[in-house]
Amino acid sequence: MSRDYEAIGIEEVRAAHQRISSHIHRTPILTSSTLDTAFGCQVFFKCENFQKSGAFKVRGAFNALLSLPTEEQARGIVTSSSGNQAAAVSLAARALGVDAYIAMPKIALQSKVAAVERYGGNIIWVESKGQVPTSEEYDATAEAIRDRTGANLVHPYDDLRTIAGQATCALELLEDCPALEVVLVPVGGGGLLSGTCLSAAALAPAARVIGCEPEMADDAQKSLRLGEIVPQTDPRTIADGLRTSLGELTFPIIARHVDDIVTVSEEAILMAMRHVWETMKIIIEPSAAVPVAALLEGLVPADAGKVGVILSGGNVDLDSLPF
Amino acid sequence: MSRDYEAIGIEEVRAAHQRISSHIHRTPILTSSTLDTAFGCQVFFKCENFQKSGAFKVRGAFNALLSLPTEEQARGIVTSSSGNQAAAVSLAARALGVDAYIAMPKIALQSKVAAVERYGGNIIWVESKGQVPTSEEYDATAEAIRDRTGANLVHPYDDLRTIAGQATCALELLEDCPALEVVLVPVGGGGLLSGTCLSAAALAPAARVIGCEPEMADDAQKSLRLGEIVPQTDPRTIADGLRTSLGELTFPIIARHVDDIVTVSEEAILMAMRHVWETMKIIIEPSAAVPVAALLEGLVPADAGKVGVILSGGNVDLDSLPF
Repeated sequence: MSRDYEAIGIEEVRAAHQRISSHIHRTPILTSSTLDTAFGCQVFFKCENFQKSGAFKVRGAFNALLSLPTEEQARGIVTSSSGNQAAAVSLAARALGVDAYIAMPKIALQSKVAAVERYGGNIIWVESKGQVPTSEEYDATAEAIRDRTGANLVHPYDDLRTIAGQATCALELLEDCPALEVVLVPVGGGGLLSGTCLSAAALAPAARVIGCEPEMADDAQKSLRLGEIVPQTDPRTIADGLRTSLGELTFPIIARHVDDIVTVSEEAILMAMRHVWETMKIIIEPSAAVPVAALLEGLVPADAGKVGVILSGGNVDLDSLPF
Repeated sequence: MSRDYEAIGIEEVRAAHQRISSHIHRTPILTSSTLDTAFGCQVFFKCENFQKSGAFKVRGAFNALLSLPTEEQARGIVTSSSGNQAAAVSLAARALGVDAYIAMPKIALQSKVAAVERYGGNIIWVESKGQVPTSEEYDATAEAIRDRTGANLVHPYDDLRTIAGQATCALELLEDCPALEVVLVPVGGGGLLSGTCLSAAALAPAARVIGCEPEMADDAQKSLRLGEIVPQTDPRTIADGLRTSLGELTFPIIARHVDDIVTVSEEAILMAMRHVWETMKIIIEPSAAVPVAALLEGLVPADAGKVGVILSGGNVDLDSLPF
C-alpha cells in the first residue's frame, strides 16, 4: 500500500493544477455572517457547486484525460459513476473531442443522467443485484466497456490522476485562505478527501482535515477506526454521491493524514442543505451539505476559528426536492 | 413633475453609495457560458440575491435611514411592502438600533414574513378590499402608522432617497462592467428601474436600459406608451415583487430615460427561474427571473452583445416552489 501513496505528493497536485486550470473554473469562496453566527466560527465555503458540470469531479476528469498521451486520449475514456463523475468525464471528453463511456446505476438522478446526455457521454447501465450497485459491480461494468472499446479506464476515485485532480480544489482553497484551522470535506470513495489531505499536508500542515459522511454510509469512519477498508453495504443516505466504499489508493492516504471522520444524520443533512439554500441563496446537493451538517450538529471543535468547507456539488433534481 | 426628478442625479447616487457601502455587500457579477450560448449574447448577472436580506432593497432602506438626522433616525422608520422592502427596512433599522414598522399584505410569502420577524420588524397587516392591496391601501396603512408612532415614512419606491439607494446597484454594475450595451431590470414600482436609469445615463449613456415586467402586471409598459401613470389593478403574476404601480417620482425618470419596457409570460418567468437555478446553481426569486425571461423570449436585440441583468432578489418559499 505505502508504495502507491508515496508515489503522489504536492508536486503532482501542482502539475495537475497547471494541466487543468484553463479547462476549469477557479471557483469562488463565499462567506455568510448569518451562518458564522449560527455555527460560532468563521466559515469559508469553496463553491464547487459553481464548477463546470456542477461539481469538483471535472478536476480529476480533466487531469486523468490530459495525463494521457495524445494517441491514448483519442481512444476515449471509460468511467463508472452514480452521477457527478459521469457528467464530469463526459464534459471533459467532449472538450477534448474524444468519446466518453459511462457505467451508471439505474437509480441515478434524472438530472445527472440528463447532464451526461447533454455532454454527449455514452451511458451503459450497471447490472446490479441490489438497488445500489456495489463497487465490484461498477468496476466490472467499466472493465467490460474498456475491453470492448479500447477506451482508457479512469476510476472515479481510486486512481492517482483522479486524486491529484481533486486535490487541486483544496490547493486553491488554501492558497486563497492560508489561515484555515479546519477543513471539512465530504467522503464517499475518498477521492476528494485524500486529495485534500495531500494539499493540506503540504500547504497547511497545522490545519485539521476532517472527513464528513452520512451515518447511513459510515464506511470511512469504520475503516479509519479498524485500520482497513470496510466496504459500504446497502447505503440508504440521501447523499447520493457518498454511497461508495473507500479505495485501495484513497484509504492509505486518508488513514495517514486525516485528523478525524465524523458522521451526520439524514435529518441534519437535509436541514443543512436547506439552511445553505435559504441563507446563501446557492444550490448545493445533499452530499455537499454533509460537512455543513457536521457544523450544524456541533461536531467541529468549538475553538475551530477559521473553517474551510468544500461544497462539492450542486446537482439536484428540482422536480423531486426533499423539502 | 420635472422639478422632482431634476432634483436627483449621479451626485446623489454617489453620495448614497458612500453612505451605505459599509452596510451592504458589493455583490458579485456572475457569468455562465451555458446561458451565453443559450441567449446568444454575453450576460453579466449582478447578484442582488446575495445582497443582505436577499434583495437590492437594503440599498434604498439604508440610504433613507442614513439620510435622516440622528434625532430623526431615533424615531424609527415606517414602510409598506409585499416582502423584500419589509425585510430590508427591518434589517437596516436593527443595524442602526431603531424601530421598524412594516405595513404588509396578508398574502405576503411566509418566508418574507419570517424574515421581517427575524430582523425584529413590527408587522401591521394592510386592510384590503381585493386579494392584493392597492398602492392607496398600502400608503394609507403606512401613513396611519406614521401618525401613531411618529416614525419616519419611507416609501418603498416613490422616494428620492430610496431611488438614489437603488441606483447604487447599477452604479456598481457599470463600474465593474463599463462596456455593457444593454441593461435589463425588473420593474414593479420603478425604484430599481428609475435608479438604474439615473446611473446608466451618467456612466454609460450609450447603454440601452430595458425595463422587464410580467404580462400579467404590465402597467409600466402601458404607462410608458400612454405617457402617464396607468395604475396596476389585480396583478396575477407569480413575480410577487412586481405587482405595484409606478410612482409620481419613479415614472418621470423612467419615461425620460428608459429605452423600452418589455413584458414576459408567466411560463417564461418560471422557465427562466428554473434555468438559472439549474445552470448557475443560484437561487433567484420569480421577480428576478423576469429579465432573464426577456432574454429567453428573444425580446432583447440579437446584436445586444454585452448585457447586464440585475438579479434583484433570491427570497422564495422552499416549501411551496412553483416547480
